[in-house]
Amino acid sequence: MTNQVITKVVHAIQDDYADDFAWCYGCGRLNEEGYHFRTGWDGEKTVTYFNPSSKHAAIPGFVYGGAIASFVDCHGTGSAALALHRKNGFEPGSGEEPPRFVTGSLNVNFLKPTPQETTLKAVGQVEEIHPKKWKVSVEVFAGDTLCATGEVIAVVMPKTFTNK
Amino acid sequence: MTNQVITKVVHAIQDDYADDFAWCYGCGRLNEEGYHFRTGWDGEKTVTYFNPSSKHAAIPGFVYGGAIASFVDCHGTGSAALALHRKNGFEPGSGEEPPRFVTGSLNVNFLKPTPQETTLKAVGQVEEIHPKKWKVSVEVFAGDTLCATGEVIAVVMPKTFTNK
Repeated sequence: MTNQVITKVVHAIQDDYADDFAWCYGCGRLNEEGYHFRTGWDGEKTVTYFNPSSKHAAIPGFVYGGAIASFVDCHGTGSAALALHRKNGFEPGSGEEPPRFVTGSLNVNFLKPTPQETTLKAVGQVEEIHPKKWKVSVEVFAGDTLCATGEVIAVVMPKTFTNK
Repeated sequence: MTNQVITKVVHAIQDDYADDFAWCYGCGRLNEEGYHFRTGWDGEKTVTYFNPSSKHAAIPGFVYGGAIASFVDCHGTGSAALALHRKNGFEPGSGEEPPRFVTGSLNVNFLKPTPQETTLKAVGQVEEIHPKKWKVSVEVFAGDTLCATGEVIAVVMPKTFTNK
């Protein structure tokens, strides 16, 4: 028996976004230059991993706060999409197109300098506060160290975004 | 007489950061792959401009929230550095090395979808709330449209960041 640390999401909600919605710089699988955040369930919580590259520095050795904010942002919208998708009876990988959320507000508290050489883990707790508005509380860990906390209010993407 | 719109900061605080502190993915002049945000005075307010590239999308045509959060983040720390530098008797371009701040907390409220083809302007109002802690209130405009508001608590970079 090993204590292997899992740092990969198998079924991510972003894998199932329609192609039109898969270009996000944070979590779009079709955006070649983006972060490629992928968010899935871990029991009743949600999880996203992030391996910062050397370019994502604040100063060398520590992760840029804007990159952590981006991580929290997409973890938030992805978590809300997971939760509404589950409420609708679906899981990522089931073949159904999930709902797509945008960020209403984003809050990040930076508690400790975040090291660059470690896989970061965002853990989310989702709460429905309105049928179209979901609150996601986020903790960002580097190993066992809580480096940042955050909160995202995610809103079902309005039709004005797509004009469809 | 023309109504030319100025969208460039001549003397940015980031131009004067020491080389060791010029690698930030948001505002580091030495980070080749970063956003290269540059923050300067505009009267008693501070200003940063951002021309999003096509990769910085949420969905095509609209700017990614994490990129706007990054914009607000570096505008906040840059504005705080400008203000403390001025308090110390210096202006960017004077040849003195400015103080360097880190982000304590970051808050962004997304009011409207932010178009990608427009130069964005962040306007900041800085307030000293402690000799080492400054609050920056931020408004992000696309043309005349207020697309986002934010608040950054910026903290003078602790020595634990550099071990110097």
